[in-house]
Amino acid sequence: MTQPKPDIRLYVPQPLVAGERLTLGQGQSHYLAQVMRRKAGDSIAVFNGHDGEWLASVEYVAKKSVTLEVSRLLRLQKRSPDLWLAFAPIKGKTELVAEKAVELGASALLPVFTRHAVVKSINQEKLEAHAIEAAEQCERMDVPRIEAFKDLPALLAHWPEDRILFYGDESGGGTTLRLLLSSLPHGPFGLLIGPEGGFSAEEHRMLKSTPFVKPFGMGPRILRADTAAVAALACLQCWLGDWEEKPACAPMESHA
Amino acid sequence: MTQPKPDIRLYVPQPLVAGERLTLGQGQSHYLAQVMRRKAGDSIAVFNGHDGEWLASVEYVAKKSVTLEVSRLLRLQKRSPDLWLAFAPIKGKTELVAEKAVELGASALLPVFTRHAVVKSINQEKLEAHAIEAAEQCERMDVPRIEAFKDLPALLAHWPEDRILFYGDESGGGTTLRLLLSSLPHGPFGLLIGPEGGFSAEEHRMLKSTPFVKPFGMGPRILRADTAAVAALACLQCWLGDWEEKPACAPMESHA
Repeated sequence: MTQPKPDIRLYVPQPLVAGERLTLGQGQSHYLAQVMRRKAGDSIAVFNGHDGEWLASVEYVAKKSVTLEVSRLLRLQKRSPDLWLAFAPIKGKTELVAEKAVELGASALLPVFTRHAVVKSINQEKLEAHAIEAAEQCERMDVPRIEAFKDLPALLAHWPEDRILFYGDESGGGTTLRLLLSSLPHGPFGLLIGPEGGFSAEEHRMLKSTPFVKPFGMGPRILRADTAAVAALACLQCWLGDWEEKPACAPMESHA
Repeated sequence: MTQPKPDIRLYVPQPLVAGERLTLGQGQSHYLAQVMRRKAGDSIAVFNGHDGEWLASVEYVAKKSVTLEVSRLLRLQKRSPDLWLAFAPIKGKTELVAEKAVELGASALLPVFTRHAVVKSINQEKLEAHAIEAAEQCERMDVPRIEAFKDLPALLAHWPEDRILFYGDESGGGTTLRLLLSSLPHGPFGLLIGPEGGFSAEEHRMLKSTPFVKPFGMGPRILRADTAAVAALACLQCWLGDWEEKPACAPMESHA
């Protein structure tokens, strides 16, 4: 018994088990009932980052809340590759970088405050909402963890020593990404991309004297910070991540 | 005799030789005189895609035209890697893809009309202006050629047979990009990225039956078309392009 996969996917915080009833929050209820005009009996897909992706049917539509009934498993849970993205938020583009990082499978987003940064504060809740929306749309099974904004020394002080940190060195230091990727053992990784103005001389020194940090270059052209984040993340995912897997958008077999 | 590199770089169509006088068009004249407030005696950098990058000084500022005098060579000419990007224009994001492709060093942009495309016409002049602006800003020495909008059968019919065309197969066919990149000989390359809605079944069949076309996948998550273009272009440039070169933003030695 198969049926076409629903075209709406929602991330929910609740545990997902067959027969479970979920009452959606105001935002998702509004989206489902008013924007997408779903009615009792309609099907959607839900996921929570732990229990896989489930089919759920709309049970009851009230003015400010929609209740779903979870019916059957569509896809088993899968973790995204263990790849963190630390990045200096970019004026007007922080959400865009978060959205692309979710599509490209980053498992954690770590906004970093650097010397030449223009953005001095971030709205973590808004960033989380963006990450959830991007995960819903790109068929991802989990949502990356979004860490609190910290400065570069704090990032390095809290960084696990066994996790290699690839750092985009716009000053031309470092080896090529190709060489780095071809020579490294597998293991947990992170990527650090600086702000539009680049890192300061002191930051470059601090990074280069940190054992787990590996500087790399991205060629002769000056990449915008958002381009650099997407480009480097893509290379890392292509070489060390899960790009050998097939897309999950084909109609699913029933697991129930 | 060295001096700091000017912070304004302009693409000009004229030949560049020491002593040459250039009269800028209305747009660039307005930008230089009114927006950036440059006056007679100020220095800027100019390039034309053939003769290298030159220092030029503002000679005369009139209401609608600025005249420059070309003084000395700052950098020798360099060609971008021979990598074409064929892409289905994306509603509201065509210029963004062009900008990123210029930063990532694509040597030609080929807008392609596909079955599921939403965008049915493009403004080639506007796209060229965007590409020029992106080249000026990213320290690139040339501007990619922008071809006329054609449909997929015409693209394939005019494609040189010795140029491998990597095609992003969102349906999950094809091998991984990593394997493709590791196994291919060097040579001229192209990349094809489809529209938001993906290629049609007929287009997939047409592509797969074309000898110079190599399908590849980009993992389990569904990438937006603009993300896919940037991500795949970055991987190709990282593996087959010029990312082993250093950025050209350091102060230059005098060649005069």
